[in-house]
Amino acid sequence: MTQNLPARLDGSVRVVGAGLLGASIGLGLKRLGVDVILADASRAGLNLAIDYGAGRLAAEGDDPALIIVAVPPDATASVVAAELAAYPNATVTDVASVKVAPLAELEELGADLSRYVGSHPLAGRERGGAISARADLFVGRPWVVCPRPEVGRERVVLIEHLVLDLDATPVTLDVDAHDAAVALVSHAPQVVSSLMAKRLGAAPAGALGLAGQGVRDVTRIASSDPELWVQILAANSPAVVEILRAFRDDLDDVLRALGDVEASGARRVIAQELAAGNAGVAGLPGKHGQDRRYSSVVVMVDDTPGELGRLFSELGEIGVNIEDLRLEHSPEAQIGLAEIAVLPEAKARTMDDLSARGWRIAG
Amino acid sequence: MTQNLPARLDGSVRVVGAGLLGASIGLGLKRLGVDVILADASRAGLNLAIDYGAGRLAAEGDDPALIIVAVPPDATASVVAAELAAYPNATVTDVASVKVAPLAELEELGADLSRYVGSHPLAGRERGGAISARADLFVGRPWVVCPRPEVGRERVVLIEHLVLDLDATPVTLDVDAHDAAVALVSHAPQVVSSLMAKRLGAAPAGALGLAGQGVRDVTRIASSDPELWVQILAANSPAVVEILRAFRDDLDDVLRALGDVEASGARRVIAQELAAGNAGVAGLPGKHGQDRRYSSVVVMVDDTPGELGRLFSELGEIGVNIEDLRLEHSPEAQIGLAEIAVLPEAKARTMDDLSARGWRIAG
Repeated sequence: MTQNLPARLDGSVRVVGAGLLGASIGLGLKRLGVDVILADASRAGLNLAIDYGAGRLAAEGDDPALIIVAVPPDATASVVAAELAAYPNATVTDVASVKVAPLAELEELGADLSRYVGSHPLAGRERGGAISARADLFVGRPWVVCPRPEVGRERVVLIEHLVLDLDATPVTLDVDAHDAAVALVSHAPQVVSSLMAKRLGAAPAGALGLAGQGVRDVTRIASSDPELWVQILAANSPAVVEILRAFRDDLDDVLRALGDVEASGARRVIAQELAAGNAGVAGLPGKHGQDRRYSSVVVMVDDTPGELGRLFSELGEIGVNIEDLRLEHSPEAQIGLAEIAVLPEAKARTMDDLSARGWRIAG
Repeated sequence: MTQNLPARLDGSVRVVGAGLLGASIGLGLKRLGVDVILADASRAGLNLAIDYGAGRLAAEGDDPALIIVAVPPDATASVVAAELAAYPNATVTDVASVKVAPLAELEELGADLSRYVGSHPLAGRERGGAISARADLFVGRPWVVCPRPEVGRERVVLIEHLVLDLDATPVTLDVDAHDAAVALVSHAPQVVSSLMAKRLGAAPAGALGLAGQGVRDVTRIASSDPELWVQILAANSPAVVEILRAFRDDLDDVLRALGDVEASGARRVIAQELAAGNAGVAGLPGKHGQDRRYSSVVVMVDDTPGELGRLFSELGEIGVNIEDLRLEHSPEAQIGLAEIAVLPEAKARTMDDLSARGWRIAG
């Protein structure tokens, strides 16, 4: 267990920005015994994160060796510059989703770039804010670190220790490679998802009642914060435009083919695009859409008062720990499905014990 | 318990097409004691489904009252016509994802349409074939039934019994409304997902290692079978084209704005498209924390055994109906958050009563 390991980071760490990422970093480092100093332009947001256990208020004489700037992309460069100036010995990193634009802005600002190492944890949630923070937000996730020749190796190592302490995986990329990569695996998909979701707003009556998991998955990230995403997309626009233009050209090919499906070759065009999609998604590493840390047990629950309560009481009696839970409930249906995430070693026993108590297991 | 209810369907049911849907229907009906006759053009596929327990071989003298055609869209009309001709008393339905084109083809074929009721279960899995079949594939899912004036009510009721027996929810739509709805919630998202996934095939080295849940969700259905989807898209091309053209126009707006993000109004255009995506995805029913029909109450739950059970028992005592539920649980945190969706009019009372019982309300 990570909790019992000594932190690789010594001394105190200052986190500027107490939103989802900043508060999650604070929670994760405090778990390791690190002294975490929190700062945020919003006093209310700061107090919430401190109440949540993500760190303490700054105090006279604080001398953090490491500063993590976790503010929105548009504010990143100016806050990094201010922290570099205020703490002349500290190594400063940021966690913004774009890396080229903040670096260029820092150069314009004349900041001491020998102490700045940009980074980017590929982790997040649909909902932001400290209230959504989790110490394990970064577990098993890639965390890009962008070293540059003018930065001493020991400062880069410090950021890598931060990444490792939070159980994330350091990935070294230069800022251009980073921005091209996230344009493809994050920024362009965000636009595509949002534009598809926008179409749902024009749904004929009853159509959305037919929505299944497919359209829900395609449009899930369309619930992301527009204010944040305008900043991200604007800061990485050349790379995003390149991908979306190629996407648009393919879409035009499909539209032409669908416009006259009896034309020679029309079906072949559509099939080739779909097959290329097969190949593209097959290239994604790992298992799709599954959290490999947990196994899930799906239980059918009658839609009568108290049934969920009984299920949870009995899970308590069985003594199994519920790691996560998701309830599927179709308004007209007489039953719902409770998907319970448990540790893999507890799955068989959970299923057996629930079955023995008369619960119907759906998967 | 569904298993103990008598089947509403009497006599034997013939299922033509022993793939995922046909075999799942067979499994579901056999569980209810229905005599299921299976047929498939592929003898190997048929044997697999029979071995799997989805039904039996056809025999001399079979006289099914109900026939379900579960073959690919392009083959649907000709198989339905053949079944109508071979069994002159039977009611025939199909489960194809498109409903206008097969009906038009049946009219051309001169089939006895007074005994045909098209239908479409909104259920599926990424992997097809009898080996992926599940008796509970349709549980809680909408199943569209398309009655027409020339079909006797008793035949429509027969299809609705089929739907209810499989624990699905019958939804009545005419064929045009059905095809417009699935173009929006299924067919257009399939194209968008596939074309985004195609871009991943051109990923620079290392980029796919940064993929998170967002791009995985957006591209998950891109792993669908191209052969099947060419048939679906071609059969519903006018409705799909209408949606994809509107999508393309929005995409062009975003591309223009991203092409010059410093231009006056450029950021506003992008923000408006993203906000429209927020609104679109919020309209999807039954989604966690985003369903406008429900209000959410977030309760802090100590991470000790039995606490969740106590919460649910007390919700039962209060008498509030839980419409949806989501559990947030950070392994290191001493508390979890239970987000409970209730009817808006029940929110204030739920919060008051839970507070009075000592629960901490987080939002």
